[in-house]
Amino acid sequence: EIQPLEAESGEVSLNGYEHYMLKEIYEQPDALRNAMRGRLNDQDATAVFGGLNLTPQQLRSVERIILTGCGTSWHSALVGEYMIEELSRIPVCVEYASELRYRNPPIENNTLVFGITQSGETADTLAALNETKRKGHRTLAICNVVGSSIAQASDGGVYLHAGPEIGVASTKAFTSQCCVLAMLALYFGRMRHMSFETGQQIIEDLRRLPAMIEQALTCDNEVRRVAEKYQSATNVLYLGRRYNFPTALEGALKLKEISYIHAEGYPAAEMKHGPIALVEEETPSVFIMPRGTTYDKVLSNMEEVKARGGPVIAIASSNDTEIRKIADDVIMIPEAPEFLQPIVSVVPLQLLSYHIAVLRGCDVDKPRNLAKSVTVE
Amino acid sequence: EIQPLEAESGEVSLNGYEHYMLKEIYEQPDALRNAMRGRLNDQDATAVFGGLNLTPQQLRSVERIILTGCGTSWHSALVGEYMIEELSRIPVCVEYASELRYRNPPIENNTLVFGITQSGETADTLAALNETKRKGHRTLAICNVVGSSIAQASDGGVYLHAGPEIGVASTKAFTSQCCVLAMLALYFGRMRHMSFETGQQIIEDLRRLPAMIEQALTCDNEVRRVAEKYQSATNVLYLGRRYNFPTALEGALKLKEISYIHAEGYPAAEMKHGPIALVEEETPSVFIMPRGTTYDKVLSNMEEVKARGGPVIAIASSNDTEIRKIADDVIMIPEAPEFLQPIVSVVPLQLLSYHIAVLRGCDVDKPRNLAKSVTVE
Repeated sequence: EIQPLEAESGEVSLNGYEHYMLKEIYEQPDALRNAMRGRLNDQDATAVFGGLNLTPQQLRSVERIILTGCGTSWHSALVGEYMIEELSRIPVCVEYASELRYRNPPIENNTLVFGITQSGETADTLAALNETKRKGHRTLAICNVVGSSIAQASDGGVYLHAGPEIGVASTKAFTSQCCVLAMLALYFGRMRHMSFETGQQIIEDLRRLPAMIEQALTCDNEVRRVAEKYQSATNVLYLGRRYNFPTALEGALKLKEISYIHAEGYPAAEMKHGPIALVEEETPSVFIMPRGTTYDKVLSNMEEVKARGGPVIAIASSNDTEIRKIADDVIMIPEAPEFLQPIVSVVPLQLLSYHIAVLRGCDVDKPRNLAKSVTVE
Repeated sequence: EIQPLEAESGEVSLNGYEHYMLKEIYEQPDALRNAMRGRLNDQDATAVFGGLNLTPQQLRSVERIILTGCGTSWHSALVGEYMIEELSRIPVCVEYASELRYRNPPIENNTLVFGITQSGETADTLAALNETKRKGHRTLAICNVVGSSIAQASDGGVYLHAGPEIGVASTKAFTSQCCVLAMLALYFGRMRHMSFETGQQIIEDLRRLPAMIEQALTCDNEVRRVAEKYQSATNVLYLGRRYNFPTALEGALKLKEISYIHAEGYPAAEMKHGPIALVEEETPSVFIMPRGTTYDKVLSNMEEVKARGGPVIAIASSNDTEIRKIADDVIMIPEAPEFLQPIVSVVPLQLLSYHIAVLRGCDVDKPRNLAKSVTVE
């Protein structure tokens, strides 16, 4: 099944978009459809994967999962941790690939290691997978580029099928990785305690996902307005809890990468242990707070920021009418089950970084100092 | 053994220092002596703790450790992860207390949960310990304030004996927490695979620690010079690997807390996956890179930053003569075994944030927006 696929930016059309990044943001509904195509099985209420190369018995015996990656892929690993722990109740550890490769951690038997990478060529991720493989652990890849080094080095894996990603700031690869991780969580869950009915419900939720992203993309004009307002910021904080904590990290990374604005993500409740000292009139905070179990807690974190004079942008559920009374700016996203919220809520964050970068005259697709795939240490 | 101890800043003398924070930085050699007093046992080549309230058999059966905390205590948890995994080969997970309390993660049998806190009153840490306790897991506290809520709520624990910490930015509590975690790593290690001779060596290393901190404190004048040079920076990156990655996070947090400069810590190798886009002439990077297994790798990360025009400050071993040729500024720290490096290398970072804050006219002991102990969510 290994088919080398070489795509240079010259060969991929911009298709009317001004930048590859914007095109790839808008490709996300299709990318998610491609990630799910042929992988949702209604009859068994589970997900199916062709390339795991492990027997159901081997997969059933997994007692712990390590997810490793770098940059944006490390963020999708964090999303995956929450998904897999909630849906399949298998304990998950997330490791920076660059740390995992050198720190020789104790890893129990029956641990499965996933390397997450868009390019499949990330040097640190490849080295981390090879090192865990040497210790006798099973390794799987979640990657986009078919036939890449990491796809070949691992025991098996899941391709994203997101199509070539040209923009240096990863967008559709992130949401596709999260989608694959959700399907893996469903699959491992159904192998264990998850009922047929819950499995069906999750499949139904996943099927609605591309339409949710389409709806989320309609916030583009509103995001552009917010981008104009905050384009001169030099520091931005991104805050969220549970599923939306990794989204906060990812939103901040996008802004860093292409706008060169120092943005940082935190679990919202950590704010009061230090970062809130940065809050002042010139430092906006982006709260990712769609309705969910920690909504009230995040709202009270937001009120603390407001009380200290910091401007607040909320990424909130479309049915949240109260939030407009507190937040300075609100970007609405469609309602989604909590485990899919990071995939939906990252869309306005991608667009926010895009529009701010364009307004600041930055080279969106080729930001300074960065390479698309980091094939050196 | 529970003795309530109430200390208000009014009752604790500044002892000639200009600020409590500076006094507490200089108290660290003594704080570490107090943390170790009566706890190092040469005869058995291990550490002993009076208040764990668990039998050796119960402790021997521990198969996984969760370390949880907030802010600076979360950073010492990260240091503890590296220490315990290396010295005792027990797998460790580190969790933000504010996340752990709400996300209901799967936790295996024979998991021991440590809550790390200076005050013993941190609301999120208390709630996280109570929630894991409800699930039937054993909980222990590592805290400073005797008789505090968390000390009472947990099954047992280890006191820091660091004396009252008045400065809002934690300093001696951090190094004392790391020291306690090192002794716990020794204790768990000696219960398992660690030889008598290695145990002796670690005791010897620990005994040298207060003198190492005394030597590290002699960098104060050099740090002040560096602080003067970079006092107007608006963004700073802190980078380190393995044991020095949490130190990078902690150094960045100190600067944020009291100087209101947006500083951020990263594992050095993650730089090239995004943050390096921030590097320019006005954005200095602090590399924490005492000699050790990843020294060469961090050096090459530093060269990448230099190549992009970013000024570089190195926290390096006193015998590292080559580094002056590459780094713009070098602060020397005494050589230390890798597992003790974070305790030594954080000292110049504490002093750097202190001097910059003073130069910028900030209220060092009572920074804006922050409270010493966060007793609300």
